[in-house]
Amino acid sequence: MSSAAKGKLYLVPAPLDFGCTDDQQTLITDAIPSGTLQAASQIKHWICENAKSTRAVLKRIAEHHPLICTLQDMTITELPREAHKHGDHKAAQDNNAALRALLDVALQGIDIGLMSEAGMPAIADPGSSIVRAAHALGLDVVPLVGPISLLLALAASGLNGQNFAFNGYLPQESAARKIRIQQLEKLALTSGQTQIFIETPYRNAALLADMIATLQPISRLACSVGLNLPSAKTVSLLVKDWRIQKEVADSLLTSKLPAIFSFGV
Amino acid sequence: MSSAAKGKLYLVPAPLDFGCTDDQQTLITDAIPSGTLQAASQIKHWICENAKSTRAVLKRIAEHHPLICTLQDMTITELPREAHKHGDHKAAQDNNAALRALLDVALQGIDIGLMSEAGMPAIADPGSSIVRAAHALGLDVVPLVGPISLLLALAASGLNGQNFAFNGYLPQESAARKIRIQQLEKLALTSGQTQIFIETPYRNAALLADMIATLQPISRLACSVGLNLPSAKTVSLLVKDWRIQKEVADSLLTSKLPAIFSFGV
Repeated sequence: MSSAAKGKLYLVPAPLDFGCTDDQQTLITDAIPSGTLQAASQIKHWICENAKSTRAVLKRIAEHHPLICTLQDMTITELPREAHKHGDHKAAQDNNAALRALLDVALQGIDIGLMSEAGMPAIADPGSSIVRAAHALGLDVVPLVGPISLLLALAASGLNGQNFAFNGYLPQESAARKIRIQQLEKLALTSGQTQIFIETPYRNAALLADMIATLQPISRLACSVGLNLPSAKTVSLLVKDWRIQKEVADSLLTSKLPAIFSFGV
Repeated sequence: MSSAAKGKLYLVPAPLDFGCTDDQQTLITDAIPSGTLQAASQIKHWICENAKSTRAVLKRIAEHHPLICTLQDMTITELPREAHKHGDHKAAQDNNAALRALLDVALQGIDIGLMSEAGMPAIADPGSSIVRAAHALGLDVVPLVGPISLLLALAASGLNGQNFAFNGYLPQESAARKIRIQQLEKLALTSGQTQIFIETPYRNAALLADMIATLQPISRLACSVGLNLPSAKTVSLLVKDWRIQKEVADSLLTSKLPAIFSFGV
């Protein structure tokens, strides 16, 4: 069977305002191009991180692009728990049958959408194992344009965007975290590679304080909060200036909005 | 002067169809959200990688969102040559006065747009030095949503999106390039970090052949071509399968479209 006769796996980005109150939300047409919204509106079969948030996004799409059928008539299936981490080959292998089963309808020519809670699926979010399973079945995988918070933050930081790494989460324990920060800074200083990472919102302030205390004075440290929301803010300063302008750090992370951190030269 | 009274620096993504013929181009409203197009349509002062391509994008925006003034009445200034690479601190320092001069109008409350030839400015493209200069002047830096080819490719690859690095270009000379590929593969295998890179189109086929020959059989290698165009294609296979399915590699890079490569586990 040629891939033309099979359904495709569309990677559908979600707005970055997940968890925000209705009045904080962006207009979905402002955040996501109509090409993406139009393609998403024609999909009946969904695989997602969270079914409730996927239905909420689909309702917002429906206000601008009529959906192909009612939400009740759609199949919206959450990714199996094991697929939430990229994991090792063994885990992916064990899980293969379940993932393939989710993609079965594509073999009958039906398109499938993959959506995470916010931003692009499979980037700093679950989904890569289902993408691998799709390639194994010979399905076309189509990534659609939308907000990707990591790279909005990187662009706004002024840090090196020609050589960078995303490290996910740092260790939670403070001593281990400081050692990791120093390792990554050494890498940044010797190679020029910008280091990017995230944290759960309630730990953001502690992480920022640790970095300001630990990094070299002439390293540049940037933090973006609430990207793609009206309140979005990026601060990018040399560490020595973060130390002087204490009020900047104190006022930046007062909300529970997601933050993205990066440092380098 | 508070930053509220100053103009902002908007990072404005361009479509990924730079260099394509008119009939290959995507509809700009399909590729870029209306929030971005609306914001861009209100900007009179532009700093860019290439003035000609910036004017072409502005003409495409004008078909959907009336521009604030004619192209003739806009100020469209190309980035100084030195600002095309992220460079070291010394180079950025030397260049500071020129970059600050480009941002002078923002101190009078006028917004400025930054645009590269394709995709997001300052990501795998010039622009980071002007962003740093904007932060030094206390300007708000606002990254707008649009296509970012690197991460569309990463999402579509099925490779680890929770730990990844973008390495820019590999060495041109074949022996040095093979050594670098092996170093990066070792890093990918030991840390799980996906390795992403790009090449100039006419060298794409040679790079792909080198990777297929050099990488371990069980590493996963992905290549995306022509992202966000109707002809977009992502192939993601284990290296041993790239070796068996020789026709896949042969047919993938026949066009001069940009390609993005990634490998890992």
